[in-house]
Amino acid sequence: MSFKSDIEIAQETTPLKITEVAKNCGVDEKYIEQYGNYKAKIDYRMLKDLKDQPDGKLILVTAITPTPAGEGKTTTSVGLADGLRKIGKKAVVALREPSLGPVFGVKGGAAGGGYAQVVPMEDINLHFTGDFHAIGAANNLMAAMLDNHIQQGNALGIDVKQITWKRAVDMNDRQLRHIVDGLGGKAQGVPREDGFEITVASEIMAVLCLASDINDLKARLARMIVAYTYDGKPVTAHDLKAEGAMAALLKDALKPNLVQTLEHTPAFIHGGPFANIAHGCNSVTATRMALKMGDYAVTEAGFAADLGAEKFIDIKCRMAGLHPSAVVIVATVRALKYHGGVAKADLNNENLEALEKGLPNLLQHVDNVKNVYGLPCVVAINAFPTDTKAELDLVEKKCNELGVNVALSEVWAKGGEGGKALAEEVVRLCEQPNNFQFVYDADASIEQKLDTIVKKVYHGDGVVLTANAKKQAQQLTDLGFGNLPICMAKTQYSFSDDAALLGAPKGFTVTVRNLKVSAGAGFIVALTGDIMTMPGLPKVPSAEKIDVDENGKISGLF
Amino acid sequence: MSFKSDIEIAQETTPLKITEVAKNCGVDEKYIEQYGNYKAKIDYRMLKDLKDQPDGKLILVTAITPTPAGEGKTTTSVGLADGLRKIGKKAVVALREPSLGPVFGVKGGAAGGGYAQVVPMEDINLHFTGDFHAIGAANNLMAAMLDNHIQQGNALGIDVKQITWKRAVDMNDRQLRHIVDGLGGKAQGVPREDGFEITVASEIMAVLCLASDINDLKARLARMIVAYTYDGKPVTAHDLKAEGAMAALLKDALKPNLVQTLEHTPAFIHGGPFANIAHGCNSVTATRMALKMGDYAVTEAGFAADLGAEKFIDIKCRMAGLHPSAVVIVATVRALKYHGGVAKADLNNENLEALEKGLPNLLQHVDNVKNVYGLPCVVAINAFPTDTKAELDLVEKKCNELGVNVALSEVWAKGGEGGKALAEEVVRLCEQPNNFQFVYDADASIEQKLDTIVKKVYHGDGVVLTANAKKQAQQLTDLGFGNLPICMAKTQYSFSDDAALLGAPKGFTVTVRNLKVSAGAGFIVALTGDIMTMPGLPKVPSAEKIDVDENGKISGLF
Repeated sequence: MSFKSDIEIAQETTPLKITEVAKNCGVDEKYIEQYGNYKAKIDYRMLKDLKDQPDGKLILVTAITPTPAGEGKTTTSVGLADGLRKIGKKAVVALREPSLGPVFGVKGGAAGGGYAQVVPMEDINLHFTGDFHAIGAANNLMAAMLDNHIQQGNALGIDVKQITWKRAVDMNDRQLRHIVDGLGGKAQGVPREDGFEITVASEIMAVLCLASDINDLKARLARMIVAYTYDGKPVTAHDLKAEGAMAALLKDALKPNLVQTLEHTPAFIHGGPFANIAHGCNSVTATRMALKMGDYAVTEAGFAADLGAEKFIDIKCRMAGLHPSAVVIVATVRALKYHGGVAKADLNNENLEALEKGLPNLLQHVDNVKNVYGLPCVVAINAFPTDTKAELDLVEKKCNELGVNVALSEVWAKGGEGGKALAEEVVRLCEQPNNFQFVYDADASIEQKLDTIVKKVYHGDGVVLTANAKKQAQQLTDLGFGNLPICMAKTQYSFSDDAALLGAPKGFTVTVRNLKVSAGAGFIVALTGDIMTMPGLPKVPSAEKIDVDENGKISGLF
Repeated sequence: MSFKSDIEIAQETTPLKITEVAKNCGVDEKYIEQYGNYKAKIDYRMLKDLKDQPDGKLILVTAITPTPAGEGKTTTSVGLADGLRKIGKKAVVALREPSLGPVFGVKGGAAGGGYAQVVPMEDINLHFTGDFHAIGAANNLMAAMLDNHIQQGNALGIDVKQITWKRAVDMNDRQLRHIVDGLGGKAQGVPREDGFEITVASEIMAVLCLASDINDLKARLARMIVAYTYDGKPVTAHDLKAEGAMAALLKDALKPNLVQTLEHTPAFIHGGPFANIAHGCNSVTATRMALKMGDYAVTEAGFAADLGAEKFIDIKCRMAGLHPSAVVIVATVRALKYHGGVAKADLNNENLEALEKGLPNLLQHVDNVKNVYGLPCVVAINAFPTDTKAELDLVEKKCNELGVNVALSEVWAKGGEGGKALAEEVVRLCEQPNNFQFVYDADASIEQKLDTIVKKVYHGDGVVLTANAKKQAQQLTDLGFGNLPICMAKTQYSFSDDAALLGAPKGFTVTVRNLKVSAGAGFIVALTGDIMTMPGLPKVPSAEKIDVDENGKISGLF
């Protein structure tokens, strides 16, 4: 066991030059744009040039319903890719980029942990290659052009009370949630209620992550609805002639970033949309590159298998034509005991009764992956030193009853060596036939699609739409958006829409209160309650501990 | 004469790989961090390692009082460096980075023009290496930590009516000039009046540009005053424990960016503070690198020689221990006629009378440079096809009477070839002895320093402080800031504080209405009126014309 912090472990390793990493996974030099010695952007033209080259196997890493005990999805994804390399397979991992908000807030870094990390972790956590800044700039250019249009005469007849576009900063800043701007007199804009989102919640983040190339990017940007007119017609970015300049700002951000794991496995880290109001996956271009460069491409989705994996399948795979070969469901014994009702402080004690009570959460996710998504899966138990043999045996027994194997993952402590068992099982699963399928037919009505998700994935009794949501469903259908996939924005802490219902609850309905379209991203967001799109800083922000020495060496990230 | 647009000219040239450019000017490979193939950051450790290597000659490019006719300071700086190379000298140019605000607003690009440009101009104008985003993020982290401190109990007793720190976006967005934020209830911040500045107006921009290394950067960030307490005591970034995280965000932004001119002359482009509320020069680190890498380092200052050059000398040179060898004063015949009272539409016609009437503006700048700053100078006439021989002869005759030569600069049309005459004169001037001196003694009182600038540089009768400004001068002196240099924030369109007084006005006073300290940057800002720190977009923003094609090629920048 190591007692070193993540940043200490990361700074002890000697990474390969990124040109070496690229060469090792077959990226031709002409596609590489170095950002310093250890980061590179890979030109999206590579995908066009290699379109006839066969793809590797796509492996999705997802998890049980999250708890305060932590699961370690990113750590497992990194360790699995390293483990696949250890057993002689050509593996590449594709992950999301961290936002600055959590880095300075509570969470700290987001680049794996222990001996399963991507490096340079400091850069990945702080700006990286500037993608999020580009998204913020494009988002705020859109906002400035919109308000400027109104200020300069409002030829389009935009209703200032129906502006749906918000400004963005990549920062946890509650002070900007609700503002009134345009104050100060007639030369200073039009007074109106407004607010900021954190950059990762911008629709542009989702657009960038789903765009297949620069033309598709521009077309999606053009379709984004930023406001409605006095007579209720949508106003798009194209109406404001903004898509060209936004695409120009995003031309480099669209190129996936290549870094490496501590064990020099190639890692694409690109894009990081919210997993509630957006789909929560890294970019399509990064996943496609990982599939071209690896025989095995490991990727992750946000939150648990009911939310993140469902969106991965119904939104990302559907739009990009991706076909996963296997799924890893990450769980910890501690988290399962939490689902069984144990308080966070008592999770270190063996408790088979609570474990048995919490196991249905895992088993329902397993059942969904196998039987609803139709994909072979393995449960990865992210090992903790407090796990007992009796507890691990119980998890294994219950999973085996569903025909699913369990692999103990020790990648946090041992890196790829600790991921070999998981890697072996994943390779085996990838050879199995699978019945991959979407959860719903996109051509079904909005209400039908919602009902299908609630019944098939959440195992609830059905969806309930408020009167308001019903009206919105009709309006969106009338506007021609009825056949878009659904992006469910509900609590990640339960299968239901009530965060307090742990385990695998039964006998509930899910209430959808608001429906809105992200026309550029290409999905309908179904909100079951208020979703916070601008976090705040805690009493003692992580930022207070971050420092840099005279040689540029960062400390205090964890 | 060419009728191609700037971007067309720029895209026709084949740049050298940036590693070649660096090698050609003697930058050791170990200091280079590539950003793609044509941009690099140079590690500031190079300056420490080479501190015993002799510096080249420092040449400042400044200008007459700006007019709507345009002067071409950046174009002349680039062309002069190319011209120096053409006559066999080892020259490097150090310039400011453009802001996204003007790129999307009225101005278009800011990377020189015609055949005297720096490339890749698209990247330089759009994000470049992300420095301004880093500054914006550090600025907004500071703001979020400040408001979070108040929200979490306000242990420091910060008066919400005395918060001096503003948030920033790198965008022309008048809607954000005056806002009320923290609305929405007790969990959503503290309601207060607030506003945004454009990123280049952030004190952090000035701090980054004046910092000599990362320790100095951190010390300056720590000293920044962000608010005052209920009992009037300054609250600094250090009090909020923010300097470490801000410095971590800025660690790469502190490294100068290396690009090249169309003729492959090395160009450092780094930092771009406002020239009114800040000092308006590229970074000290970039200028120092240019001096190490070139026998001749060409740099520019903001606005005219009364504002930009004065701050270059009294703020930048004073803090960094720089000693210029020669000054180039850029003028156009058209602008001089404008100073002589000709309307913009009539500037193409020969008008010797108006020219003679406008010439005192140039001559007063020449006199200041020679006799107040004590530096040898040359007047560079940025040639226009409409200039007549009689007009050019008149300019030359009047300058010669002051012992100063005139060089016709044709760098816009001919590149370095058109800058050879100017280059020859600059080389000659660099061999002259000079009596370089600051305008004022920093230890004089604030009022004395202001009065000295007004009398010696502006040739006015003296400074007038409002009652409010007098009180502020006393407060700042009591707080220990009395010995800082002055950063004058007045109109750039006149020697006086009245933009309508063209030429070389006499018999005026300059009224200072507000004094505030930029304690991190290390100067006292003297405001003669309202200075706009958040521009707006025009009726038809340049952004509407910008586009990018499927290969990532940008159009519509000019």
